[in-house]
Formats: sequence, C-alpha cells, structure tokens
Amino acid sequence: MASKTDTEVIIGGKVFTLSGYESEEYLQKVASYINNKIADYNKMDGFKRQPLDTQNVLLQLNIADDYFKAKKQVEMLEGQLSDKEKELYDIKHELIATQIKLENTEKNVKNLQSDISEDSRKIIQMETELKTLKK
Amino acid sequence: MASKTDTEVIIGGKVFTLSGYESEEYLQKVASYINNKIADYNKMDGFKRQPLDTQNVLLQLNIADDYFKAKKQVEMLEGQLSDKEKELYDIKHELIATQIKLENTEKNVKNLQSDISEDSRKIIQMETELKTLKK
Repeated sequence: MASKTDTEVIIGGKVFTLSGYESEEYLQKVASYINNKIADYNKMDGFKRQPLDTQNVLLQLNIADDYFKAKKQVEMLEGQLSDKEKELYDIKHELIATQIKLENTEKNVKNLQSDISEDSRKIIQMETELKTLKK
Repeated sequence: MASKTDTEVIIGGKVFTLSGYESEEYLQKVASYINNKIADYNKMDGFKRQPLDTQNVLLQLNIADDYFKAKKQVEMLEGQLSDKEKELYDIKHELIATQIKLENTEKNVKNLQSDISEDSRKIIQMETELKTLKK
C-alpha cells in the first residue's frame, strides 16, 4: 500500500512525473483540480497578458486561498464539535441526575404502597373488631 | 469594509500587487505561507535543478495537497458533528421521557400520601371508637 510509485499527470497541458506515496487516483484528482483553476483563469482576458511568473503566483495564491478557507472551516467545525461535546456532557449529567431521582421516587412509591397495605390490614382488622364489639 | 484595495506582497522574492476584497493581513498571511513552502523546497538539492515550470507545478501540487487534506478534515469533522447531533437528539428524547416518568411518579407519590393521610384519619377514628366501646 505504501510503496513509492511514479504517476504521470498532465498539468497546464504539460506532462509531469510525480514520485511519491500518494495513490494515482488522488494525484489525478489534485491535477484535475489545478487544471480546472487554470482553465478558469484562461477564460479571463487579463490573465494571459500577465507575465508567466505572475500567472503562476496568482494560481498559487488562489489554491492557497482555498486551503485557508478550508482551514478556517476546520477551526469553525472544531469549535462547533467542542460545543456539542460540552452540551452532550451536560445533558448526560442531567439525565443521570433525573434517573437517580426517578429511582428514589420509585422506591418511595414502593414504601408508600407497603405502608398502605399495612394500613389496610390494620383497618380491616379494626373493622372486624368493631363489628364484633357492636354485636 | 468590502472596498477593493491594492496590496503589495512579496512572493519568491518578487513584488506582486494584488487587487481584491481580502484584507492586507490575510494576503500577507497567504504570501508568507507560500514563501515558507518555497523556502522548504529551496533547501532540497534536487528542486533548484528542476525547470522553472516544474518548480511551479510542484509548489502548486504541494499547496493543493494541503487544501485536499484540510478538505478531508472538514468532511471528517462534519461526519463527527452529525454523529454528535444525532447522539444529542437521542439523549434529549431520553431525558424528556425520563422527566415525564419522574413527573408521573411524583404525582403517584402525592396520591399515595393523600391515601395514607386518609387511612391515618380513619385509623385514629376507629381507635377512638374502639376505646369508647371497650370502656
């Protein structure tokens, strides 16, 4: 997988042989991205009239601009992700606290139900006693 | 803020005047990023021996590689963010369900407590009655 390979790409109409560890598919994608930029620039009247080194620098600046925009998006997404993680942490704590409260309340219900059974028994017993006494 | 300005940057030792809406600070940052890449390449023996157009294409490929790596990171972070949002959505639902269950259980406690009060009243009444009858 990680063996060094030679890949031929065409950039700006010229063939370049790239040697490296990147896959041919990836290098062709990158070459195609650069070629699209060159094609866009060539549509502009002013571009072709610029000296070659200016053309190259404009292209480099344009690609670097894409990079810095993507980098800014990375930072923004990292911020959003960290916010979501904080929110998730807080809500997990709230859920656990609510679950514990529910558990205790359910225990309370059981105790109260047992008290009621006890009382009911007591009431029946007393009712019987009263009935006997009243006879 | 969005007025078109001219900014002079030095790239590869040459002065270029860039006309655009980007801030001078941003353009200098981008220029400095490109100059660092050029400096790194110039440290390599083989680079200077390449024809100028090859040097330019290598630089463009290198910047584009940074861009594609950042783009991949954007996609990865977007995936993570969407997972977190799903998790958050699920846990919010679980929290609401638990809160409703707790509310109902608390109502149940109140009803049971009222039943117990009623029973206690009944028991006291019957105890009094029994005491009177036993006299």
